[in-house]
Amino acid sequence: MNNPNIVILGAGYGGMMTTTKLQKSLGANEANLTLVNINDYHYQATWLHENAAGTLHHDRTRIPIKEIVNTTNKINFIKDKVISIKPAEKKVKLENSEIFYDYLVIGLGFELATFGIPGIEEHAFKIENINSARLLREHLDYNFAKYHDEQKKREARLNIVIGGGGFTGIEFAGELANRIPELCEEYDIEKAQVRIINVEGADTVLPGFDPQLVNYAMNSLEARGVEFITGAMLKECKAASIVYEKDEKQVEIPTMTTVWTAGVKANSIVEKSGMETNRGKVEVRKDMRAPDYDDIFVIGDCAVIMDQESGNPYPPTAQIAIQQSNVVAHNVKSLINGGEMEEFEPNLLGTVASLGNNDAIGMVMNNRKLFGWKATVMKKVIDNRYLFKLGGISLLMRKGKFNPFY
Amino acid sequence: MNNPNIVILGAGYGGMMTTTKLQKSLGANEANLTLVNINDYHYQATWLHENAAGTLHHDRTRIPIKEIVNTTNKINFIKDKVISIKPAEKKVKLENSEIFYDYLVIGLGFELATFGIPGIEEHAFKIENINSARLLREHLDYNFAKYHDEQKKREARLNIVIGGGGFTGIEFAGELANRIPELCEEYDIEKAQVRIINVEGADTVLPGFDPQLVNYAMNSLEARGVEFITGAMLKECKAASIVYEKDEKQVEIPTMTTVWTAGVKANSIVEKSGMETNRGKVEVRKDMRAPDYDDIFVIGDCAVIMDQESGNPYPPTAQIAIQQSNVVAHNVKSLINGGEMEEFEPNLLGTVASLGNNDAIGMVMNNRKLFGWKATVMKKVIDNRYLFKLGGISLLMRKGKFNPFY
Repeated sequence: MNNPNIVILGAGYGGMMTTTKLQKSLGANEANLTLVNINDYHYQATWLHENAAGTLHHDRTRIPIKEIVNTTNKINFIKDKVISIKPAEKKVKLENSEIFYDYLVIGLGFELATFGIPGIEEHAFKIENINSARLLREHLDYNFAKYHDEQKKREARLNIVIGGGGFTGIEFAGELANRIPELCEEYDIEKAQVRIINVEGADTVLPGFDPQLVNYAMNSLEARGVEFITGAMLKECKAASIVYEKDEKQVEIPTMTTVWTAGVKANSIVEKSGMETNRGKVEVRKDMRAPDYDDIFVIGDCAVIMDQESGNPYPPTAQIAIQQSNVVAHNVKSLINGGEMEEFEPNLLGTVASLGNNDAIGMVMNNRKLFGWKATVMKKVIDNRYLFKLGGISLLMRKGKFNPFY
Repeated sequence: MNNPNIVILGAGYGGMMTTTKLQKSLGANEANLTLVNINDYHYQATWLHENAAGTLHHDRTRIPIKEIVNTTNKINFIKDKVISIKPAEKKVKLENSEIFYDYLVIGLGFELATFGIPGIEEHAFKIENINSARLLREHLDYNFAKYHDEQKKREARLNIVIGGGGFTGIEFAGELANRIPELCEEYDIEKAQVRIINVEGADTVLPGFDPQLVNYAMNSLEARGVEFITGAMLKECKAASIVYEKDEKQVEIPTMTTVWTAGVKANSIVEKSGMETNRGKVEVRKDMRAPDYDDIFVIGDCAVIMDQESGNPYPPTAQIAIQQSNVVAHNVKSLINGGEMEEFEPNLLGTVASLGNNDAIGMVMNNRKLFGWKATVMKKVIDNRYLFKLGGISLLMRKGKFNPFY
């Protein structure tokens, strides 16, 4: 009898952790394990804003897949792009091949949602993956370099507009506030000439976060030159400006750098596969399987789980994806070897948002508020804990974030 | 009686060395010395190709003027742009002021000449000053970063065309050949995807240079991936391609990076001043003064001196400009204090072209040919010697190029 084929799509937090767990728990004779990913590396999506700002090199953020999984023996790794999933045929179409599965784990992550705002797709920069993050870093450098090479100086080169005051937008603003003085030094520009402008549609940035912590974050960032425009909707992004509307008035800011951080959605391949979706995401069963398919698991940003208490979905965080991978790996093994199916129960450990400059805010277990250096320590603990789980002490030592002072 | 006003325009090789020499030879009570420059720094124009390729940081190439001349006491430094020179009124118009002189030294350097080739002005990159050199560096980074961020891959982002196989073009090609492997590593690009193409109008690169050395240089660069197209004229530069004509056929190469190194002319302010010029340059008298004005000296790229033997002008090199500064400084002092006027006699010590990668070619005194590491040593000796002359041992230690092996 042939071994069953387990195919894992996507090497993000969920797919990667599922892979490493199955690698440990399943013998090579029990199943064929195949990981498919568009790149030959995994990356920490929660660090991309640092790569984009230029405060952390992208090679710190990414990890070659072959350094984590044993691709010589137990696991097949296919570097390719997923084109479509055909659940009825138990088949996945890749750009260069087709593969069949007995069990499928979909962890294809998010895409940006632009809500149809004109020009975002063409002109805005994105903090979406390694490619888009380092492009943004180079775009900033290029514009600062270009400033003094033009006869007519253009403030559009030095204004940076961040669309969206959610986690990514705020964390990016914080890193940028750290980076700007270095860019100014490099390209002979006065710091006062540079503007970092955060535009958020809600009445406050980080909506839903504790107001005291939001206040702390805004003060910290404003002190380092970040401007906030809340209750303002982006109306159009152009090559050299952005238009927003606030109090029924439209305002145009000259900028060649609009960074879009205001919306994500599930990878559209999931919706196109014909599976039942809720706003593009698969509302998975308690054992993390798709409602209509007993052989398909969905994890991370492509899945949605409702919190019965609040009536809202659990947030699409790395933390949740990693927790889900425990259940997915366990249940895949159970389906193959026999055994009980587990149910996913989220354990919300808290959230920390970095503000750059060794500052951060966070809510941790039991609704405890954290800010300042204590929150930055917690942030590093979370990041380092993940690296340890993913690749043990050697990965932690290579990629971890350590601070000599605490 | 008032002290005479000496005004030196431009802090390039000629202006800078004239300033430091006059600072030493003239007492503070003998004259007012004013240096005017568009930037508050001097730079080694002969190192700009390294800044542009990204193999040497531009801060190694530039030197704050206040670190070389004593601007607190003996010398007035005005950071401003020269708009025009009015010899009849003994006046120089700057962007923000007007200054009068008794003695004027014009060392305003070169401008690029595009010979009317369509699109060069708008689309080609230049290795002209610190601003344009670091812009080119960032442009290369940006295009390599953009390559993988686009759905449709564009070879125009990875083709680099250098227009001109003179000194700058060849030296830049050599540095670029060093830099490309690093850029490929940084942006996940295969080295074989990148092309460096040098297009030269003459039948050989480095026309006028010893054929054996030219051959050596071409072999060295070809071995590192540089392609040469000689006997080819650039016809048009577009945003994403360049057209050249060879053997009566036009060829279009997709590229977003055309680097124009094929022509320089004297700063056009000189011609517009109404002084008699020869192809934009002032054919100075033997004492380095303009033919029609006893109070105006012209130095470096704005001046031309014919070699009576060959009938050709001496080349517009840093070496010649530095030698001229001895005569100019001496003669300015003679005009003020009385004394003999000296005549300029060039002492052609030789020329070395760097090829990157610790390789170089050179012709030195007595027509001795040099290549390989010996030529690179000679190149460093020349550069370091200049720094020592300009700012003594402390400047040499800070900015000099040293190699631990020789």
